[in-house]
Amino acid sequence: MADEVMEPGGRTRLYVTADLGEGVALPLSDGHMHYLLHVLRAKAGDHVRLFNGRHGEWSAELETVTKRGVIVRLKAQTAPQVPAPDVWLVFAPVKKTPGEYLVQKATELGAARLQPVFTRRTIAARVKEERLLANAVEAAEQSERVSVPEIAAPLALEKLLASWPPERTLYFCDEGGDAKPLAQVARPGPAAILTGPEGGFDPAEREMLRSRKFVVPVTLGPRILRADTAALAALAVWQSAAGDWLQP
Amino acid sequence: MADEVMEPGGRTRLYVTADLGEGVALPLSDGHMHYLLHVLRAKAGDHVRLFNGRHGEWSAELETVTKRGVIVRLKAQTAPQVPAPDVWLVFAPVKKTPGEYLVQKATELGAARLQPVFTRRTIAARVKEERLLANAVEAAEQSERVSVPEIAAPLALEKLLASWPPERTLYFCDEGGDAKPLAQVARPGPAAILTGPEGGFDPAEREMLRSRKFVVPVTLGPRILRADTAALAALAVWQSAAGDWLQP
Repeated sequence: MADEVMEPGGRTRLYVTADLGEGVALPLSDGHMHYLLHVLRAKAGDHVRLFNGRHGEWSAELETVTKRGVIVRLKAQTAPQVPAPDVWLVFAPVKKTPGEYLVQKATELGAARLQPVFTRRTIAARVKEERLLANAVEAAEQSERVSVPEIAAPLALEKLLASWPPERTLYFCDEGGDAKPLAQVARPGPAAILTGPEGGFDPAEREMLRSRKFVVPVTLGPRILRADTAALAALAVWQSAAGDWLQP
Repeated sequence: MADEVMEPGGRTRLYVTADLGEGVALPLSDGHMHYLLHVLRAKAGDHVRLFNGRHGEWSAELETVTKRGVIVRLKAQTAPQVPAPDVWLVFAPVKKTPGEYLVQKATELGAARLQPVFTRRTIAARVKEERLLANAVEAAEQSERVSVPEIAAPLALEKLLASWPPERTLYFCDEGGDAKPLAQVARPGPAAILTGPEGGFDPAEREMLRSRKFVVPVTLGPRILRADTAALAALAVWQSAAGDWLQP
């Protein structure tokens, strides 16, 4: 296999759930084994990087490679565990392909939690949480994140607001009215971005949102953005104004 | 048809190339005719909105509707012509689906011109300009833009830089090095965002770019973004910092 993919420090990163530490030996899952053996054509002595969301990132060597399993041995920590920026994405589920795209992009853009929310005009009737999680894992592996965003169980908007932690600002992407640009009102501290379904929020929902103290209505410019565009744009703007894209 | 789609001021917007003005009668294209008659089931007396990138947006009534053609009559201007924010997106072509997605999102995010550029690591061998334009038109119709981004002919990076207008700042999304966050260096004035192919720019390209006075290297945070994510995030951040998402 091309050196840059499987050499020490190469591109191949795998998310695992086991504890990580120096000298630890781990069996890889069937999915990872298939990927390494049949896609990357890995052999003993090749290297990967592992992360689990708790113990940073580790380089690991493929120690035993057989058709029945792959055992990797952890060598050294290659990146420390850092917290994801404390921003959630609260989104009305969209159709399959845009939904997968949204999860992938939100993971790259550093969201800590993805929270599906059902609104009156939400069309997608079901959310496949396992599928969302698989998309998030893949995107985390490719984006150098040392964590995978949490996929929260879907909630109706009323229930979400009733149980909302009041110290977390909910930036509500509002198509109409007097909202301020997100870049101008974003503040450091626990945050969440809320974007609506394709048809937007209905008037009663907008009123309910605007009546909450933790809700800050924001605008994303004069054009109409699709739901997934709005979500990604808002995450990027928040990271730039209050998240880890800021530099001192 | 549902009132909100085809009533005066309804959602249906069509991009046309003809001149627009009060009382003008226009035959619609076969594509628009098919869409109105067979998808929306329009009838005489229904309304659409038209724009051409020059004369603002106009409401128009379907005056004659037959199987051989649809004639619309322009009633009143519903939005003035405003210039698109003066930002171009210069991007290495990506595969079909992400490419269509990129054009769609860049249109929603207000890019004035989309410039495909070939770099050493660019994989997509051909660019279907008609296809990109069709995506841009559709996105412009849905996003309330009164213009369609120009699709420029693809150029090799060297040629692009050799003919670059020096007064236009080229914000180069650079994965490595000492680049500053885009939100902190974006300035008003003619601008362009440059994002690389999936494999990034090669070292010689990075050096060539950084040697130009009009190039400003910028970073989009600590994670690795896919090429299309970087393009969309950079456009959103530029609009927030220097474009028409700013409010006085």
